[in-house]
This record gives sequence, structure tokens and C-alpha cells, in this order.
Amino acid sequence: MAPLLLNADMGESFGPWRMGWDEALMAVVDLANVACGFHASDQDHMRKTVRLAAEHGVTVGAHPGYPDLVGFGRRSLRCSADEVQNLVLYQVGALAAFCRAEGVALQYVKPHGALYNDMMHRPEVLEAVLDAVRSFDPQLRLMVMATGDNRRVQQLAGAYGVDIWLEAFADRAYDSKGYLVSRSEPGSVHSGEERILEQASRIARGEPVSAFDGSSVTLDADVLCVHGDNPESIAAVRRIRRILNGGVNRGVQ
Amino acid sequence: MAPLLLNADMGESFGPWRMGWDEALMAVVDLANVACGFHASDQDHMRKTVRLAAEHGVTVGAHPGYPDLVGFGRRSLRCSADEVQNLVLYQVGALAAFCRAEGVALQYVKPHGALYNDMMHRPEVLEAVLDAVRSFDPQLRLMVMATGDNRRVQQLAGAYGVDIWLEAFADRAYDSKGYLVSRSEPGSVHSGEERILEQASRIARGEPVSAFDGSSVTLDADVLCVHGDNPESIAAVRRIRRILNGGVNRGVQ
Amino acid sequence: MAPLLLNADMGESFGPWRMGWDEALMAVVDLANVACGFHASDQDHMRKTVRLAAEHGVTVGAHPGYPDLVGFGRRSLRCSADEVQNLVLYQVGALAAFCRAEGVALQYVKPHGALYNDMMHRPEVLEAVLDAVRSFDPQLRLMVMATGDNRRVQQLAGAYGVDIWLEAFADRAYDSKGYLVSRSEPGSVHSGEERILEQASRIARGEPVSAFDGSSVTLDADVLCVHGDNPESIAAVRRIRRILNGGVNRGVQ
Amino acid sequence: MAPLLLNADMGESFGPWRMGWDEALMAVVDLANVACGFHASDQDHMRKTVRLAAEHGVTVGAHPGYPDLVGFGRRSLRCSADEVQNLVLYQVGALAAFCRAEGVALQYVKPHGALYNDMMHRPEVLEAVLDAVRSFDPQLRLMVMATGDNRRVQQLAGAYGVDIWLEAFADRAYDSKGYLVSRSEPGSVHSGEERILEQASRIARGEPVSAFDGSSVTLDADVLCVHGDNPESIAAVRRIRRILNGGVNRGVQ
Repeated sequence: MAPLLLNADMGESFGPWRMGWDEALMAVVDLANVACGFHASDQDHMRKTVRLAAEHGVTVGAHPGYPDLVGFGRRSLRCSADEVQNLVLYQVGALAAFCRAEGVALQYVKPHGALYNDMMHRPEVLEAVLDAVRSFDPQLRLMVMATGDNRRVQQLAGAYGVDIWLEAFADRAYDSKGYLVSRSEPGSVHSGEERILEQASRIARGEPVSAFDGSSVTLDADVLCVHGDNPESIAAVRRIRRILNGGVNRGVQ
Repeated sequence: MAPLLLNADMGESFGPWRMGWDEALMAVVDLANVACGFHASDQDHMRKTVRLAAEHGVTVGAHPGYPDLVGFGRRSLRCSADEVQNLVLYQVGALAAFCRAEGVALQYVKPHGALYNDMMHRPEVLEAVLDAVRSFDPQLRLMVMATGDNRRVQQLAGAYGVDIWLEAFADRAYDSKGYLVSRSEPGSVHSGEERILEQASRIARGEPVSAFDGSSVTLDADVLCVHGDNPESIAAVRRIRRILNGGVNRGVQ
Repeated sequence: MAPLLLNADMGESFGPWRMGWDEALMAVVDLANVACGFHASDQDHMRKTVRLAAEHGVTVGAHPGYPDLVGFGRRSLRCSADEVQNLVLYQVGALAAFCRAEGVALQYVKPHGALYNDMMHRPEVLEAVLDAVRSFDPQLRLMVMATGDNRRVQQLAGAYGVDIWLEAFADRAYDSKGYLVSRSEPGSVHSGEERILEQASRIARGEPVSAFDGSSVTLDADVLCVHGDNPESIAAVRRIRRILNGGVNRGVQ
Repeated sequence: MAPLLLNADMGESFGPWRMGWDEALMAVVDLANVACGFHASDQDHMRKTVRLAAEHGVTVGAHPGYPDLVGFGRRSLRCSADEVQNLVLYQVGALAAFCRAEGVALQYVKPHGALYNDMMHRPEVLEAVLDAVRSFDPQLRLMVMATGDNRRVQQLAGAYGVDIWLEAFADRAYDSKGYLVSRSEPGSVHSGEERILEQASRIARGEPVSAFDGSSVTLDADVLCVHGDNPESIAAVRRIRRILNGGVNRGVQ
């Protein structure tokens, strides 16, 4: 069984505004989802983030979002399939340019925020994203959310010839079908560290996790989402890393 | 002597707003300078324009500008060298994604408007652009303005290992050193068709053109800038094409 | 019975891009819905449009939209009530500044595109818009869509102390409850001029119009939406104007 | 002699990005220069900042800048006089809307960053700003930089009927003519607290300050610029406040 890779959103600073502890976070993750200027980041931060990933041997992925800086890409924008396809292509290409300039390979795409959600809930959005990824580079992987049953997503991705990475969350409650419980529900976000480490560990070993309703559900995941908003969350990522695999699987070979 | 290639700015529509007669123009030029979303165009128009170029066998170049839609990239924005480098890389990469998706090669870069002017007047801007082009793909050419003496530009480009295309204008008056006379001067823009065709013809044959002060100046040019704002200008391009070379040198081999 | 006022969207040019025949249109309407820079227009076009309205004695209204130039404000952006309120206030205030500078009164607000639709379908959006209008100036009217039963909207507006103008369309098919038939339906947009003039005339006289399903519905409307995209539509507005009232009710006293 | 008023830039957060310790700063200044969405801030932060100022009885001013979020309005954008006038009007109007909604008066305008510098160095930019201020509300003051000789600025403002506030800096070195020494010069920014308090105190009492070249220069200032980027700078503002006037002149009557 392949070790669970840790991924985090990075390069989310914008102009004079700072966000995220990228320097510390880059030292403890495998995959960096780099914002592409539509919901966060700008040209200078994109380049700096790609360079930082290169220095740490962290694998770079594009993290495209809806064009909505004020809303940080968290507000759904009702786009046509063509519009989604082209806004993904644009952002992936822009990030790929910085990868080229810094001599690193762009290896995957993870849509951001509302685009990620829309992709999971509207098949035409997922198809548009798959089409964009494939037409840019069929070697790129697409990161999608792991649920209790990933067959539909896997079949669709297979039809486009795109490999996927299934992503799970250690700090979020799942329902019995392996979908995330909405953040608006009390208890949907785990706060206790032990609970988070337990869930990370179970996901890593392919064991079922406790669902919100008391049942359990198995998430067949390849990657685990972590955060680096502040020193505390960096420390939490370090503990997850230690519990999983001693931190040996840095980067993708 | 290589035939003079005709280039034109394209893909300058934005969202619901139309600009340019791209469909007609694409049939009569060799090179399409495609806007990249900072001063004009958007993701959907970029893709459409690249596709149109592909259908006509027209060579595609990136046409990056300052981030200024309202000012159409014609207002100089005082950027650092790093900022210039990264804004060029971002836009070139974004356009390259649509080239990949449409199966065509991106072959050159021509900065737009105030960025083009700044590049010709501030060496650090030219170096930043050259650095961006080289770090993206050293096979890309950079289009710069031809003057009476191109040695400085050629040397700088050579130092970066970037080939250049020198661009001349058939409808603009030159001073005795081969620089364009400012548009604010009366007589700086030729209106008579005969005059324009004469200047195009002289540039194509490597003959000196009449300068503003009555002297003459030779422009060692590879490409000629044409416009497709309306049916009249399309007709003018057709006449230039006919006078030059019967329209046989479409595209770049 | 008050004469039906003609309103049209104006000031939709953006930077170098032209849209609409504002100069001709301004001569034949009563109310100008002036775009505020979020979905269309920019500072210079806003000022120019307000000045043009002033010259023609046309009443000026603010036409705020979602922040989406590429999508022309036609794509719904999922905003909170506070976000809607503040984006309306921002745009109304910006336009009001040009009204002050040109010495004319800002008299109403008409949300644009997806914001207009969302306002009609989501009560919390309508309340947010009403709150914005009232907190800016309780004398401003809000333009909303007339349906077969406007009581809910009238009550809500009354609760905020905001007067409304009910807007009808001469070129669109209505269903039996007085809602617009979706543009995706064949026959939803009237093309024949006679049909359009007939519907305009009936709305003006308070007579029922033929609904899509063969029934009829009465629209209690104050204003009629017209368009000025091209010379043909200007001519059509002139004919509507003539049929209604001989063009005497220009402006609002 | 009127007491020196303390002003600070506020409302510079943008979307999800935080900047400035506005809550603490608002308690110790007289005037809040509120960003208007072009170089910083957004609709929601503008409203929040105006409300915060209202709660503290702090006088609100509009702080318009060039449309350049990435560059935080610090990069000069070459605009025409009309463009400057209209971008100031737009932003002032937008902020005024939030003032109305929160029931406070907008009392002055202070251009930001590169626009402020351009206004001080290019008379046509100053005239454009004055024209915008006057046409919005001739009661508004304009904040400009105090130098050793303010007559030219005062005359120009007088010609437009606009009152000005002259602004000085406690932490910046002045040359012998009372112009700020460029930040690129070593020693142009005072770091020692004693030096800063001394300069603040001298400016407040109308006494000459030591210039960069060893001479001295008197700055006839009405307001003093302070910063609230972090807790240390808030503490520094408190000490300036204490030294000046015991903190009694909060707000403008």
C-alpha cells in the first residue's frame, strides 16, 4: 500500500497581503497546491512558491479557482462547461510557466474551494476539469475528494485517461457514505488533536473511520489535506507526518 | 532575403465586448499576436483565437501586457524587473496552455502597448522580458521594434540566447534614426494608401524609407505590423500582402 | 394612470470596448440604468453616460451587478446578504458621485443580470438590496420585475420604506402567473414587431397580455425595458414610444 | 494654534487577507484614511472600517489610489487628468455611500501611494484631484504633503475653492526644502523612538526640524501621519499622542 501523501494549499499570499506559513509548511508536506492568481496569489508569489517547493523537493500542483479574489474562490460562480475548462487551462498554464522557469515538473491539478465542491457535485464540471487536465498534459493527475464510493469519479476520469488522487481529511467529520459533513453542522470539524491523529492514522492504514451517525466508513485515499495557517497547524502537520510514516515519503518519484 | 511576415494583434475581445475582425484578418496574416488576459482577452477568447489561428495555419505568438484592462495596456505601470519578468511568464504560460490544448506550437512573444514601449526605452525592462522568454522556452522568439540601428537590442538578446524578430510599421512616420515619430505629432500616422504601400514595399525590399525630417533611414525588419479593426483595414492588409509577395509566405516553417 | 416609462441599460462600454448606441438611445427613453463598473462600464464611461443623460433630461438610475466583467454580470455569484448589501452600496455610491459632479439627481436603482434574477428569486437578496437602497437614500426607488402578483415584493419594499417601480418587457413571453418564460424555451422571445408593439400597448393600458400557455395575465407595470444594441433596436424603441404616448413623458418630474 | 491631528491609513484588509491593527489604531487617532477598493479594501471592509470609525468618533476620509491591488497602489500608472479625476470621484463616492449607511460624515480625501506622490510632483494630477474633490463636495478637505513652502499648493487649492490639510511625517527625514528624502537613501527613515518623538513634537509646535543635510526646515503642518501595522507601532502612536496633546483632540468638530 502506497503511503498517504500530505498536501497543502500554498502560495496564497496576494500582493502586499500575507497568508500561510509556507516556509515552515513546505518542510513537512509532500505536495504543494499552488494558487494561480484567480482566487489567491499573484505572479510574484507563484514564482516564489514554486521555487520554495523546488528547494524542498516538494511536488508542485496547480490549484486553480474561480476568478474571485474578494471571496477567495469560496463563492460558487455559475460557469458553463467551456468556461470551466478554459479557466482551468489558463491557470494551469500560468503556473506551468513558473515551473519551467524554476526547472521543476508540474505534476497535478487540484481545483480550489467552490470549484472543487462544484466538481464533486456537478458531473459536467468534473468533465470540464478532466478535459482541461487531459488537453494540457495527460500525465497530470487530478486530485478529487475521496468518498465511500469513488467508482463514478474513477470511471469518468478513466474515460478521459486522467489518473486521479483521492483526497481525505483528518479534521473533518464524514457521513456514513463518506461525504464531508457540512461545516455549518456542530461537530463537523474535529478540534481535539487525538481525534485528528486517530482519523489520519485510520485513513493511512485503509481502516474505516467513525462516521457522524455512529456508523463507520472506509475512505480509499491517496492524499491527506493539511493546513499551515499558523505555527500551531504546522506543529499538527508534523505530528500527523510522524504518526503516518516517519516523514520518509517526501515528494513523488 | 526572407520575406517580410505580416503580424497583427488578435484575440482582443473581452467578455461580451467585441474588438477586431479576427476571422477576416486571420486569413491574410502570417503571425497572430494573441492577447493574454491582462490588457485584453479572456480565457474563452484566447482559446477561440488560438483555434482560429490553427485552422488558418497562422503562427501563434503571446502578446502580454500590463494588467490594465480599462487602459488597454497603454498606460505605463512602473514595475520592477522581477515584476515584469513574472507578468510575462504568467501570460505566456497561460497562452501556451491553449496552444497545447489546440495542438499548435507557441512560437514567439510580442509585448503589448506600454510594455512594448517600456521595453524599447528601458534596458532593464528588455532584459526582464528576455529573461522571461528564455526561461520559458529558449526557442521562442521575441518581437521588438526595428530602428535604424538594432545592434544594442541584438546584442542584449544574443546574451540571453533569444532570437528576435524586428518589427516595422508601414503606416507610421519614422525619424532619421529610425524611431517612430510620436502619435501626438501631426503627420506621424500616414493616411494615404499609396504612401503606406510604398513604405511597406520599401521595408520589404530593404530600401530606405523617407524620414520625417526629409532624410531617409533603412529599417532592417523581419515583420510588418498590420491592423484589422474594420473591413477597410482588412482590405488594406490584403493590398500590402499582394504588393509584398503574393501572399505565399503564410505561416512560419 | 401614469404613463409607462421607458428604461434602458446604458454606459456598458468598458475601457476600449464599445457597447450600445447610447447617444441615439438617450434621445428616446425616460430612464437610463447606468452600469457601475462591476459587470460593465468604468469611471470614464460612467461620467460620460451621466453627462449624456443630463443633456437629454433623462432620469439616472444606478445599475449595480455582480463583480464579473468577463461574464457581464450574468453568472450568479453566491454572496451572503451582507455582501450583496455592500456591493450594491459601493456601486450606487460610485455612480452618485458622477451624478453630483454633473449636477443631476440619482433617482433609482435597478440591479443587473444575475443579481436582478437572484433578487426576484431569493427573498434574502431582495432584502439586502432594499436595505442598501434605504440606507443610501430612502428617496431612491428600486426597480423590480412585474409579475402577475406583486404583493409580496410590494410588502417587503414597504417594510423597508422603499418605493418600487415594476418593470415589464414587451419582447418576452410571460407564463400564466406573469413570470418570464426562460430564454431557453423556443418562443420565449418575441421577434415580430407587431407582437412586441401589441404587448407594449397592452401593458401600457393595463390590459392583460397573452401568456405562453394561451391564457392571459395582467402586468401592473410602471416601466418598460427597452434595448439599444444597434440601430434596429433604436428604431423599435421609437415605435414603442410613439404607440405609447407620443414621446411626451420624457424624464421624471 | 490648532493641535496637530493624527491620521492613519485604515481598512486595508482585502477579502480573506488581513492588514493593519485597525481596532487598536482607531482608539488613538483623529482621522482614518479609509481605502476604497482600488489599491486595498473591499466593500465589506470599507463598511466595517467606517462603522469602527463611527464607534470611536474618528473622522473619516477617503483614501483613493490607482487601480492596482497587486502593487498596493504604489506603482505609478500613467493616467490622463480626466482619468485621475474620475477614478478619484468613483472611489470617494463609493466610500461616501458607506458613510451615509453608517450615519457619519465624509470629511476629507487623501490620495494613496503613487497617486499621492504623483499629485505632489505633477500639477495636472493635483488639479485633477482638486477638481474631483470640489465637484463631489466643496466642503471636503484635501490632504496634501507639507513641504518647506506650501504656497503653490495652497494657491492651486484656493483656486478650486478646496481647503487643504498639510501632512507631515515624524519618522521620515526631510531635505532642506522640506521634501521627504527618498526611502532608498540610508537614513531616510528614522528608527530611534526618541528621534521620532522629537520630530513629532517640533512639528506640533511649529518649530524647525533637522534636515538631512544638517540645515533645518519648518513644516507648517496640520496633520501627522502615523501607522498601525503591528502592536509596536500602535504603542508608538500612543506615545506621540501623549507628547502632543494628551489625546484630547479626538475627531474634528
